[in-house]
Amino acid sequence: MSLKAISSRDNPLYKELKHLATSSQARRRAQRTLLDGVHLCSAYLSQRGLPPLCVVGESAQANPEVAAVLERCAATQRIVMPDALFHALSQVEHGIDLLFVIDTPQVQAAGRLETSAVLLDNLQDPGNVGSILRSAAAAGVAAVYCSPGTAFAWSPKVLRAGMGAHFGLEIHEQADLAALIASASIPVLATSSHADASLYDVDLRQPVAWLFGHEGQGVSADLLALATQRLAIPHLGEMESLNVAASAAVCLFEQVRQRTADAAAVARASAQGRPR
Amino acid sequence: MSLKAISSRDNPLYKELKHLATSSQARRRAQRTLLDGVHLCSAYLSQRGLPPLCVVGESAQANPEVAAVLERCAATQRIVMPDALFHALSQVEHGIDLLFVIDTPQVQAAGRLETSAVLLDNLQDPGNVGSILRSAAAAGVAAVYCSPGTAFAWSPKVLRAGMGAHFGLEIHEQADLAALIASASIPVLATSSHADASLYDVDLRQPVAWLFGHEGQGVSADLLALATQRLAIPHLGEMESLNVAASAAVCLFEQVRQRTADAAAVARASAQGRPR
Repeated sequence: MSLKAISSRDNPLYKELKHLATSSQARRRAQRTLLDGVHLCSAYLSQRGLPPLCVVGESAQANPEVAAVLERCAATQRIVMPDALFHALSQVEHGIDLLFVIDTPQVQAAGRLETSAVLLDNLQDPGNVGSILRSAAAAGVAAVYCSPGTAFAWSPKVLRAGMGAHFGLEIHEQADLAALIASASIPVLATSSHADASLYDVDLRQPVAWLFGHEGQGVSADLLALATQRLAIPHLGEMESLNVAASAAVCLFEQVRQRTADAAAVARASAQGRPR
Repeated sequence: MSLKAISSRDNPLYKELKHLATSSQARRRAQRTLLDGVHLCSAYLSQRGLPPLCVVGESAQANPEVAAVLERCAATQRIVMPDALFHALSQVEHGIDLLFVIDTPQVQAAGRLETSAVLLDNLQDPGNVGSILRSAAAAGVAAVYCSPGTAFAWSPKVLRAGMGAHFGLEIHEQADLAALIASASIPVLATSSHADASLYDVDLRQPVAWLFGHEGQGVSADLLALATQRLAIPHLGEMESLNVAASAAVCLFEQVRQRTADAAAVARASAQGRPR
Protein backbone atom coordinates (compact mmCIF):
# COMPACT_ATOMS: atom_id res chain seq x y z
CA MET A 1 0.00 0.00 0.00
CA SER A 2 1.68 3.27 -1.06
CA LEU A 3 1.53 6.05 1.53
CA LYS A 4 3.45 9.28 1.45
CA ALA A 5 5.26 9.91 4.74
CA ILE A 6 5.56 13.28 6.47
CA SER A 7 8.16 13.36 9.21
CA SER A 8 8.67 17.06 9.98
CA ARG A 9 6.60 19.95 11.24
CA ASP A 10 8.28 22.05 8.57
CA ASN A 11 6.84 20.05 5.71
CA PRO A 12 4.73 22.51 3.63
CA LEU A 13 1.76 20.14 3.39
CA TYR A 14 1.88 19.56 7.16
CA LYS A 15 1.85 23.31 7.72
CA GLU A 16 -1.19 23.61 5.46
CA LEU A 17 -2.99 20.84 7.39
CA LYS A 18 -2.14 22.50 10.70
CA HIS A 19 -3.57 25.74 9.39
CA LEU A 20 -6.82 24.01 8.33
CA ALA A 21 -7.05 22.29 11.72
CA THR A 22 -6.66 25.44 13.78
CA SER A 23 -8.08 28.38 11.82
CA SER A 24 -11.70 28.71 10.80
CA GLN A 25 -10.65 31.59 8.52
CA ALA A 26 -8.21 29.26 6.74
CA ARG A 27 -11.00 26.69 6.30
CA ARG A 28 -13.40 29.22 4.86
CA ARG A 29 -10.73 30.66 2.52
CA ALA A 30 -9.53 27.28 1.28
CA GLN A 31 -13.10 25.92 1.12
CA ARG A 32 -11.68 22.79 2.70
CA THR A 33 -12.19 21.20 6.09
CA LEU A 34 -11.05 18.21 8.15
CA LEU A 35 -13.08 15.15 9.10
CA ASP A 36 -11.69 13.80 12.34
CA GLY A 37 -11.98 10.12 13.29
CA VAL A 38 -13.12 6.83 11.78
CA HIS A 39 -16.87 7.43 12.20
CA LEU A 40 -16.97 10.67 10.20
CA CYS A 41 -14.56 9.41 7.56
CA SER A 42 -16.56 6.20 7.04
CA ALA A 43 -19.80 8.15 6.80
CA TYR A 44 -18.22 10.43 4.19
CA LEU A 45 -16.94 7.48 2.17
CA SER A 46 -20.31 5.78 2.09
CA GLN A 47 -22.33 8.93 1.32
CA ARG A 48 -20.02 11.19 -0.68
CA GLY A 49 -17.20 8.96 -1.96
CA LEU A 50 -13.43 9.47 -1.94
CA PRO A 51 -11.81 12.49 -0.27
CA PRO A 52 -8.93 14.43 -1.87
CA LEU A 53 -6.64 13.53 1.03
CA CYS A 54 -6.53 10.82 3.69
CA VAL A 55 -4.21 11.31 6.71
CA VAL A 56 -3.29 8.64 9.24
CA GLY A 57 -1.13 8.43 12.37
CA GLU A 58 1.66 5.85 12.30
CA SER A 59 0.24 3.57 15.03
CA ALA A 60 -3.31 3.74 13.65
CA GLN A 61 -2.28 1.90 10.46
CA ALA A 62 -2.54 -1.36 12.36
CA ASN A 63 -6.19 -0.72 13.24
CA PRO A 64 -8.43 -2.89 11.01
CA GLU A 65 -11.06 -0.13 10.54
CA VAL A 66 -8.34 2.29 9.44
CA ALA A 67 -6.77 -0.32 7.17
CA ALA A 68 -10.16 -0.85 5.50
CA VAL A 69 -10.57 2.90 4.95
CA LEU A 70 -7.02 3.20 3.55
CA GLU A 71 -7.76 0.32 1.20
CA ARG A 72 -10.85 2.09 -0.13
CA CYS A 73 -8.85 5.31 -0.56
CA ALA A 74 -6.32 3.68 -2.91
CA ALA A 75 -7.04 6.29 -5.60
CA THR A 76 -6.60 9.15 -3.12
CA GLN A 77 -3.48 10.86 -1.83
CA ARG A 78 -2.64 9.08 1.44
CA ILE A 79 -0.35 10.56 4.07
CA VAL A 80 1.16 8.90 7.12
CA MET A 81 2.89 10.79 9.94
CA PRO A 82 4.22 10.21 13.46
CA ASP A 83 1.47 10.11 16.12
CA ALA A 84 2.75 13.30 17.77
CA LEU A 85 2.38 15.27 14.53
CA PHE A 86 -1.08 13.79 13.95
CA HIS A 87 -2.30 14.72 17.43
CA ALA A 88 -1.54 18.38 16.76
CA LEU A 89 -4.10 18.23 13.91
CA SER A 90 -6.86 16.42 15.80
CA GLN A 91 -9.40 17.57 18.37
CA VAL A 92 -10.47 14.05 19.25
CA GLU A 93 -8.75 13.02 22.44
CA HIS A 94 -9.01 9.27 22.62
CA GLY A 95 -9.91 8.52 19.03
CA ILE A 96 -8.31 6.54 16.25
CA ASP A 97 -5.85 8.68 14.31
CA LEU A 98 -7.51 9.02 10.94
CA LEU A 99 -8.68 12.14 9.17
CA PHE A 100 -9.86 13.24 5.75
CA VAL A 101 -9.32 16.58 4.11
CA ILE A 102 -12.44 17.34 2.08
CA ASP A 103 -13.66 20.16 -0.10
CA THR A 104 -16.51 21.96 1.66
CA PRO A 105 -19.55 20.97 -0.39
CA GLN A 106 -20.82 23.85 -2.51
CA VAL A 107 -24.61 24.03 -2.67
CA GLN A 108 -26.69 25.81 -5.27
CA ALA A 109 -27.94 29.30 -4.45
CA ALA A 110 -30.94 29.19 -2.14
CA GLY A 111 -34.15 29.15 -4.15
CA ARG A 112 -37.67 29.47 -2.81
CA LEU A 113 -38.64 27.53 0.35
CA GLU A 114 -40.91 24.79 -0.98
CA THR A 115 -39.88 21.67 0.93
CA SER A 116 -39.43 21.15 4.66
CA ALA A 117 -36.37 22.98 5.93
CA VAL A 118 -34.55 24.17 9.03
CA LEU A 119 -33.51 27.83 9.34
CA LEU A 120 -30.87 28.70 11.95
CA ASP A 121 -30.75 32.33 13.07
CA ASN A 122 -27.51 33.24 14.81
CA LEU A 123 -26.93 29.95 16.66
CA GLN A 124 -23.64 30.19 18.54
CA ASP A 125 -22.84 26.80 19.97
CA PRO A 126 -21.21 24.24 17.64
CA GLY A 127 -22.67 21.37 19.69
CA ASN A 128 -26.19 22.75 19.24
CA VAL A 129 -25.75 23.26 15.49
CA GLY A 130 -24.39 19.71 15.10
CA SER A 131 -27.18 18.21 17.19
CA ILE A 132 -29.83 20.03 15.10
CA LEU A 133 -28.25 18.84 11.83
CA ARG A 134 -28.36 15.29 13.19
CA SER A 135 -32.03 15.63 14.21
CA ALA A 136 -32.94 17.17 10.83
CA ALA A 137 -31.24 14.33 8.95
CA ALA A 138 -33.04 11.74 11.10
CA ALA A 139 -36.37 13.51 10.62
CA GLY A 140 -35.94 13.52 6.84
CA VAL A 141 -35.63 17.31 6.58
CA ALA A 142 -32.73 17.76 4.15
CA ALA A 143 -32.47 21.52 3.58
CA VAL A 144 -30.72 23.67 6.19
CA TYR A 145 -30.15 27.42 5.96
CA CYS A 146 -27.71 29.16 8.32
CA SER A 147 -27.64 32.91 8.90
CA PRO A 148 -24.25 34.68 8.69
CA GLY A 149 -24.01 34.77 12.52
CA THR A 150 -24.49 31.00 12.93
CA ALA A 151 -21.51 28.75 13.80
CA PHE A 152 -19.81 27.53 10.59
CA ALA A 153 -21.42 24.16 9.83
CA TRP A 154 -18.22 22.62 8.38
CA SER A 155 -16.03 23.42 11.40
CA PRO A 156 -14.53 20.35 13.12
CA LYS A 157 -16.67 20.86 16.25
CA VAL A 158 -19.96 21.04 14.35
CA LEU A 159 -18.90 18.11 12.17
CA ARG A 160 -18.12 16.03 15.25
CA ALA A 161 -21.48 16.82 16.86
CA GLY A 162 -23.24 16.14 13.53
CA MET A 163 -21.93 12.54 13.44
CA GLY A 164 -22.15 12.39 9.65
CA ALA A 165 -25.51 14.17 9.27
CA HIS A 166 -23.80 16.79 7.08
CA PHE A 167 -23.29 14.35 4.23
CA GLY A 168 -27.00 13.68 3.73
CA LEU A 169 -28.04 17.34 3.98
CA GLU A 170 -27.99 20.38 1.74
CA ILE A 171 -26.48 23.06 3.98
CA HIS A 172 -26.69 26.69 2.86
CA GLU A 173 -24.39 29.03 4.80
CA GLN A 174 -24.56 32.82 4.91
CA ALA A 175 -28.24 32.59 3.98
CA ASP A 176 -30.48 35.67 3.91
CA LEU A 177 -33.22 34.28 6.16
CA ALA A 178 -35.48 37.33 5.86
CA ALA A 179 -35.58 37.05 2.05
CA LEU A 180 -36.14 33.28 2.28
CA ILE A 181 -39.04 33.65 4.71
CA ALA A 182 -40.62 36.50 2.76
CA SER A 183 -40.69 34.42 -0.45
CA ALA A 184 -41.58 31.06 1.14
CA SER A 185 -44.48 29.11 -0.35
CA ILE A 186 -44.79 26.95 2.80
CA PRO A 187 -45.54 27.96 6.41
CA VAL A 188 -42.57 29.18 8.41
CA LEU A 189 -42.90 28.15 12.08
CA ALA A 190 -40.86 29.71 14.86
CA THR A 191 -40.71 28.61 18.49
CA SER A 192 -41.21 31.58 20.77
CA SER A 193 -42.36 32.48 24.24
CA HIS A 194 -44.75 34.94 22.52
CA ALA A 195 -46.71 32.19 20.82
CA ASP A 196 -49.91 32.11 18.77
CA ALA A 197 -50.45 28.37 19.17
CA SER A 198 -49.21 25.15 20.74
CA LEU A 199 -46.89 22.93 18.69
CA TYR A 200 -49.36 20.09 19.20
CA ASP A 201 -52.26 21.99 17.61
CA VAL A 202 -50.55 22.59 14.26
CA ASP A 203 -50.91 20.33 11.23
CA LEU A 204 -47.37 19.30 10.35
CA ARG A 205 -48.18 16.68 7.70
CA GLN A 206 -47.48 19.25 4.98
CA PRO A 207 -43.99 20.74 4.38
CA VAL A 208 -43.02 23.47 6.84
CA ALA A 209 -39.88 25.50 7.50
CA TRP A 210 -38.65 25.56 11.11
CA LEU A 211 -36.99 28.71 12.39
CA PHE A 212 -34.71 28.37 15.44
CA GLY A 213 -32.76 31.19 17.06
CA HIS A 214 -29.87 32.29 19.24
CA GLU A 215 -29.30 30.37 22.53
CA GLY A 216 -29.93 33.41 24.71
CA GLN A 217 -32.11 35.78 22.74
CA GLY A 218 -34.10 33.33 20.61
CA VAL A 219 -35.20 34.20 17.08
CA SER A 220 -34.55 37.88 16.27
CA ALA A 221 -37.62 40.12 16.38
CA ASP A 222 -37.65 40.98 12.67
CA LEU A 223 -37.60 37.31 11.62
CA LEU A 224 -40.17 36.40 14.26
CA ALA A 225 -42.51 39.01 12.79
CA LEU A 226 -42.04 37.54 9.29
CA ALA A 227 -42.80 33.96 10.41
CA THR A 228 -46.21 32.49 9.54
CA GLN A 229 -46.81 31.27 13.09
CA ARG A 230 -45.11 31.46 16.46
CA LEU A 231 -45.43 28.21 18.40
CA ALA A 232 -44.92 27.24 22.02
CA ILE A 233 -43.92 23.81 23.26
CA PRO A 234 -46.24 23.27 26.25
CA HIS A 235 -44.45 22.73 29.57
CA LEU A 236 -45.67 20.79 32.58
CA GLY A 237 -43.00 22.11 34.94
CA GLU A 238 -41.50 25.43 35.99
CA MET A 239 -38.79 26.04 33.43
CA GLU A 240 -38.51 29.09 31.23
CA SER A 241 -37.24 27.39 28.09
CA LEU A 242 -35.54 24.38 26.57
CA ASN A 243 -32.08 24.18 25.09
CA VAL A 244 -32.48 25.14 21.39
CA ALA A 245 -31.29 21.75 20.10
CA ALA A 246 -33.74 19.99 22.45
CA SER A 247 -36.50 22.29 21.26
CA ALA A 248 -35.63 21.60 17.60
CA ALA A 249 -35.71 17.85 18.25
CA VAL A 250 -39.18 18.12 19.83
CA CYS A 251 -40.50 20.09 16.83
CA LEU A 252 -38.89 17.95 14.13
CA PHE A 253 -40.09 14.71 15.72
CA GLU A 254 -43.61 15.99 16.31
CA GLN A 255 -43.59 16.41 12.53
CA VAL A 256 -42.30 12.82 12.16
CA ARG A 257 -45.01 11.59 14.56
CA GLN A 258 -47.79 13.26 12.61
CA ARG A 259 -46.43 12.03 9.28
CA THR A 260 -45.94 8.44 10.41
CA ALA A 261 -49.30 8.39 12.23
CA ASP A 262 -50.92 9.46 8.99
CA ALA A 263 -49.10 6.73 7.04
CA ALA A 264 -50.08 4.17 9.69
CA ALA A 265 -53.74 5.25 9.46
CA VAL A 266 -53.66 4.94 5.66
CA ALA A 267 -52.14 1.46 5.99
CA ARG A 268 -54.84 0.44 8.49
CA ALA A 269 -57.63 1.80 6.29
CA SER A 270 -56.30 0.03 3.22
CA ALA A 271 -55.91 -3.22 5.19
CA GLN A 272 -59.56 -2.98 6.29
CA GLY A 273 -60.65 -2.44 2.69
CA ARG A 274 -58.81 -5.54 1.52
CA PRO A 275 -60.96 -8.56 0.53
CA ARG A 276 -60.57 -11.47 2.92
CA MET B 1 -23.99 47.95 51.91
CA SER B 2 -21.30 45.98 53.77
CA LEU B 3 -19.05 43.85 51.58
CA LYS B 4 -15.87 42.13 52.60
CA ALA B 5 -13.03 42.88 50.17
CA ILE B 6 -10.44 40.36 48.96
CA SER B 7 -7.44 41.93 47.24
CA SER B 8 -4.83 39.17 47.05
CA ARG B 9 -4.50 35.76 45.45
CA ASP B 10 -2.95 34.63 48.72
CA ASN B 11 -6.08 35.26 50.75
CA PRO B 12 -7.12 31.85 52.23
CA LEU B 13 -10.78 32.25 51.24
CA TYR B 14 -9.73 33.18 47.69
CA LYS B 15 -7.58 30.06 47.52
CA GLU B 16 -10.53 27.97 48.67
CA LEU B 17 -12.77 29.55 46.00
CA LYS B 18 -10.13 28.92 43.32
CA HIS B 19 -9.98 25.32 44.42
CA LEU B 20 -13.77 24.94 44.16
CA ALA B 21 -13.74 26.61 40.74
CA THR B 22 -11.08 24.38 39.24
CA SER B 23 -11.28 20.97 40.89
CA SER B 24 -14.24 18.67 40.68
CA GLN B 25 -12.68 16.57 43.43
CA ALA B 26 -12.61 19.63 45.70
CA ARG B 27 -16.29 20.29 44.95
CA ARG B 28 -17.28 16.74 45.75
CA ARG B 29 -15.24 16.70 48.96
CA ALA B 30 -16.49 20.06 50.21
CA GLN B 31 -20.05 19.29 49.04
CA ARG B 32 -20.07 22.85 47.73
CA THR B 33 -20.19 24.25 44.22
CA LEU B 34 -20.20 27.57 42.36
CA LEU B 35 -23.11 29.17 40.51
CA ASP B 36 -21.67 31.38 37.80
CA GLY B 37 -23.54 34.43 36.46
CA VAL B 38 -26.68 36.43 37.17
CA HIS B 39 -29.13 34.00 35.60
CA LEU B 40 -28.16 31.00 37.75
CA CYS B 41 -27.82 33.08 40.92
CA SER B 42 -31.25 34.67 40.44
CA ALA B 43 -32.83 31.29 39.76
CA TYR B 44 -31.26 29.94 42.96
CA LEU B 45 -32.50 32.89 45.00
CA SER B 46 -36.05 32.52 43.80
CA GLN B 47 -36.20 28.73 44.15
CA ARG B 48 -33.87 27.86 47.00
CA GLY B 49 -33.27 31.09 48.94
CA LEU B 50 -30.06 32.66 50.19
CA PRO B 51 -26.64 31.14 49.46
CA PRO B 52 -23.89 30.88 52.10
CA LEU B 53 -21.62 33.14 50.06
CA CYS B 54 -22.08 35.75 47.31
CA VAL B 55 -19.02 36.88 45.30
CA VAL B 56 -18.87 39.86 42.97
CA GLY B 57 -16.26 41.50 40.72
CA GLU B 58 -15.46 45.14 41.44
CA SER B 59 -16.90 46.56 38.21
CA ALA B 60 -20.04 44.43 38.33
CA GLN B 61 -21.25 46.18 41.50
CA ALA B 62 -22.56 49.00 39.30
CA ASN B 63 -24.78 46.59 37.34
CA PRO B 64 -28.42 47.02 38.48
CA GLU B 65 -29.16 43.25 38.35
CA VAL B 66 -26.11 42.55 40.50
CA ALA B 67 -27.04 45.36 42.90
CA ALA B 68 -30.51 43.83 43.29
CA VAL B 69 -29.02 40.41 44.05
CA LEU B 70 -26.55 41.90 46.55
CA GLU B 71 -29.43 43.70 48.23
CA ARG B 72 -31.35 40.45 48.64
CA CYS B 73 -28.23 38.74 50.02
CA ALA B 74 -27.90 41.21 52.90
CA ALA B 75 -27.99 38.37 55.44
CA THR B 76 -25.28 36.46 53.54
CA GLN B 77 -21.52 36.76 53.52
CA ARG B 78 -20.73 39.04 50.56
CA ILE B 79 -17.27 39.27 48.98
CA VAL B 80 -15.97 41.78 46.45
CA MET B 81 -12.70 41.38 44.55
CA PRO B 82 -10.79 42.93 41.65
CA ASP B 83 -12.11 41.83 38.24
CA ALA B 84 -8.87 39.99 37.41
CA LEU B 85 -9.19 37.80 40.52
CA PHE B 86 -12.86 37.17 39.79
CA HIS B 87 -12.17 36.07 36.22
CA ALA B 88 -9.85 33.32 37.43
CA LEU B 89 -12.87 31.83 39.25
CA SER B 90 -15.37 32.08 36.40
CA GLN B 91 -15.88 30.02 33.26
CA VAL B 92 -18.32 32.51 31.73
CA GLU B 93 -16.46 34.59 29.17
CA HIS B 94 -18.60 37.64 28.57
CA GLY B 95 -20.87 37.45 31.58
CA ILE B 96 -21.59 39.68 34.53
CA ASP B 97 -19.16 38.98 37.37
CA LEU B 98 -21.39 37.47 40.02
CA LEU B 99 -21.24 34.06 41.61
CA PHE B 100 -22.71 32.16 44.52
CA VAL B 101 -21.07 29.46 46.58
CA ILE B 102 -23.77 26.97 47.53
CA ASP B 103 -23.95 23.73 49.44
CA THR B 104 -24.62 20.88 47.03
CA PRO B 105 -28.20 19.90 47.85
CA GLN B 106 -28.37 16.59 49.71
CA VAL B 107 -31.28 14.44 48.64
CA GLN B 108 -32.81 11.57 50.54
CA ALA B 109 -31.65 8.08 49.68
CA ALA B 110 -33.30 6.79 46.53
CA GLY B 111 -36.49 4.92 47.37
CA ARG B 112 -38.59 2.90 44.97
CA LEU B 113 -39.33 4.32 41.51
CA GLU B 114 -43.00 5.30 41.73
CA THR B 115 -43.22 8.67 39.97
CA SER B 116 -41.92 9.71 36.55
CA ALA B 117 -38.14 9.91 36.56
CA VAL B 118 -35.07 10.20 34.37
CA LEU B 119 -32.20 7.70 34.78
CA LEU B 120 -28.82 8.62 33.29
CA ASP B 121 -26.43 5.75 32.64
CA ASN B 122 -22.84 6.88 32.14
CA LEU B 123 -23.52 10.14 30.28
CA GLN B 124 -20.21 11.89 29.63
CA ASP B 125 -20.93 15.31 28.20
CA PRO B 126 -21.82 18.08 30.69
CA GLY B 127 -23.79 19.92 28.00
CA ASN B 128 -25.94 16.84 27.39
CA VAL B 129 -26.57 16.28 31.11
CA GLY B 130 -27.52 19.95 31.58
CA SER B 131 -29.81 19.93 28.56
CA ILE B 132 -31.58 16.78 29.81
CA LEU B 133 -32.07 18.28 33.29
CA ARG B 134 -33.60 21.35 31.63
CA SER B 135 -35.94 19.21 29.50
CA ALA B 136 -36.94 17.10 32.52
CA ALA B 137 -37.76 20.22 34.57
CA ALA B 138 -39.82 21.65 31.70
CA ALA B 139 -41.64 18.34 31.22
CA GLY B 140 -42.54 18.20 34.90
CA VAL B 141 -40.37 15.15 35.64
CA ALA B 142 -38.69 16.05 38.93
CA ALA B 143 -36.66 12.99 39.91
CA VAL B 144 -33.30 12.36 38.24
CA TYR B 145 -30.92 9.48 39.03
CA CYS B 146 -27.32 9.56 37.78
CA SER B 147 -25.07 6.50 37.63
CA PRO B 148 -21.55 6.80 39.10
CA GLY B 149 -20.04 7.26 35.61
CA THR B 150 -22.31 10.19 34.67
CA ALA B 151 -20.89 13.73 34.62
CA PHE B 152 -21.28 15.34 38.08
CA ALA B 153 -24.58 17.25 37.94
CA TRP B 154 -23.38 20.09 40.19
CA SER B 155 -20.27 20.89 38.16
CA PRO B 156 -20.15 24.44 36.75
CA LYS B 157 -20.52 23.20 33.16
CA VAL B 158 -23.61 21.10 33.87
CA LEU B 159 -25.06 23.92 35.98
CA ARG B 160 -24.53 26.38 33.15
CA ALA B 161 -26.21 24.10 30.59
CA GLY B 162 -29.04 23.41 33.06
CA MET B 163 -29.97 27.11 33.24
CA GLY B 164 -31.47 26.75 36.71
CA ALA B 165 -33.26 23.42 36.13
CA HIS B 166 -31.27 21.92 39.01
CA PHE B 167 -33.11 23.96 41.61
CA GLY B 168 -36.51 22.50 40.78
CA LEU B 169 -35.31 18.90 40.58
CA GLU B 170 -34.38 16.15 43.00
CA ILE B 171 -31.04 14.91 41.66
CA HIS B 172 -29.64 11.63 42.99
CA GLU B 173 -25.97 11.09 42.17
CA GLN B 174 -24.04 7.81 42.39
CA ALA B 175 -27.33 5.96 42.03
CA ASP B 176 -27.46 2.18 41.65
CA LEU B 177 -29.59 2.11 38.50
CA ALA B 178 -29.82 -1.69 38.33
CA ALA B 179 -31.31 -1.87 41.84
CA LEU B 180 -33.70 1.00 41.08
CA ILE B 181 -34.94 -0.61 37.88
CA ALA B 182 -35.31 -4.03 39.47
CA SER B 183 -37.53 -2.64 42.24
CA ALA B 184 -39.50 -0.12 40.14
CA SER B 185 -43.28 -0.18 40.38
CA ILE B 186 -43.63 1.78 37.11
CA PRO B 187 -42.49 0.88 33.57
CA VAL B 188 -38.85 1.65 32.79
CA LEU B 189 -38.46 2.69 29.15
CA ALA B 190 -35.12 2.76 27.35
CA THR B 191 -34.39 4.11 23.88
CA SER B 192 -32.44 1.59 21.89
CA SER B 193 -31.71 0.55 18.34
CA HIS B 194 -32.83 -2.95 19.40
CA ALA B 195 -36.40 -1.86 20.08
CA ASP B 196 -39.61 -3.71 20.93
CA ALA B 197 -41.90 -0.80 20.01
CA SER B 198 -42.13 2.73 18.64
CA LEU B 199 -42.17 5.61 21.11
CA TYR B 200 -45.43 6.75 19.55
CA ASP B 201 -47.20 3.46 20.26
CA VAL B 202 -46.65 3.52 24.02
CA ASP B 203 -49.15 4.93 26.54
CA LEU B 204 -47.22 7.61 28.43
CA ARG B 205 -50.10 9.09 30.40
CA GLN B 206 -49.09 7.05 33.43
CA PRO B 207 -45.79 7.60 35.28
CA VAL B 208 -42.77 6.07 33.55
CA ALA B 209 -39.02 6.08 34.17
CA TRP B 210 -36.84 7.04 31.20
CA LEU B 211 -33.44 5.41 30.86
CA PHE B 212 -30.86 7.21 28.70
CA GLY B 213 -27.29 6.04 28.11
CA HIS B 214 -23.73 6.85 27.12
CA GLU B 215 -23.21 9.10 24.05
CA GLY B 216 -21.37 6.45 22.07
CA GLN B 217 -22.46 3.09 23.43
CA GLY B 218 -26.01 3.88 24.54
CA VAL B 219 -27.57 2.21 27.58
CA SER B 220 -25.38 -0.62 28.91
CA ALA B 221 -26.54 -4.13 28.02
CA ASP B 222 -27.33 -5.23 31.60
CA LEU B 223 -29.60 -2.24 32.24
CA LEU B 224 -31.21 -2.57 28.82
CA ALA B 225 -32.12 -6.14 29.68
CA LEU B 226 -33.71 -5.00 32.97
CA ALA B 227 -35.84 -2.29 31.32
CA THR B 228 -39.56 -2.97 30.87
CA GLN B 229 -39.52 -1.91 27.22
CA ARG B 230 -36.96 -0.83 24.62
CA LEU B 231 -38.32 1.93 22.38
CA ALA B 232 -37.24 3.37 19.06
CA ILE B 233 -37.87 6.91 17.88
CA PRO B 234 -38.98 6.42 14.27
CA HIS B 235 -36.76 8.15 11.68
CA LEU B 236 -37.76 9.44 8.27
CA GLY B 237 -34.20 10.00 7.07
CA GLU B 238 -30.92 8.13 6.89
CA MET B 239 -29.30 8.77 10.25
CA GLU B 240 -28.18 6.14 12.68
CA SER B 241 -29.16 7.94 15.89
CA LEU B 242 -29.93 11.22 17.60
CA ASN B 243 -27.84 13.08 20.12
CA VAL B 244 -28.85 11.69 23.53
CA ALA B 245 -30.17 15.04 24.80
CA ALA B 246 -32.23 15.46 21.63
CA SER B 247 -33.55 11.94 22.06
CA ALA B 248 -34.45 12.63 25.70
CA ALA B 249 -36.31 15.80 24.70
CA VAL B 250 -38.33 13.88 22.11
CA CYS B 251 -39.30 11.22 24.68
CA LEU B 252 -40.08 13.60 27.53
CA PHE B 253 -42.22 15.84 25.32
CA GLU B 254 -44.08 12.96 23.74
CA GLN B 255 -45.09 12.24 27.35
CA VAL B 256 -46.12 15.91 27.76
CA ARG B 257 -48.10 15.76 24.50
CA GLN B 258 -50.01 12.66 25.56
CA ARG B 259 -50.71 14.10 29.01
CA THR B 260 -51.87 17.49 27.78
CA ALA B 261 -53.91 15.92 24.96
CA ASP B 262 -55.66 13.85 27.59
CA ALA B 263 -56.31 16.91 29.76
CA ALA B 264 -57.60 18.81 26.72
CA ALA B 265 -59.95 15.92 25.86
CA VAL B 266 -61.26 15.84 29.45
CA ALA B 267 -61.82 19.61 29.32
CA ARG B 268 -63.69 19.29 26.00
CA ALA B 269 -65.83 16.44 27.29
CA SER B 270 -66.72 18.31 30.48
CA ALA B 271 -67.50 21.47 28.46
CA GLN B 272 -69.87 19.40 26.28
CA GLY B 273 -71.59 18.02 29.35
CA ARG B 274 -72.14 21.49 30.83
CA PRO B 275 -75.76 22.79 30.82
CA ARG B 276 -76.23 25.69 28.37
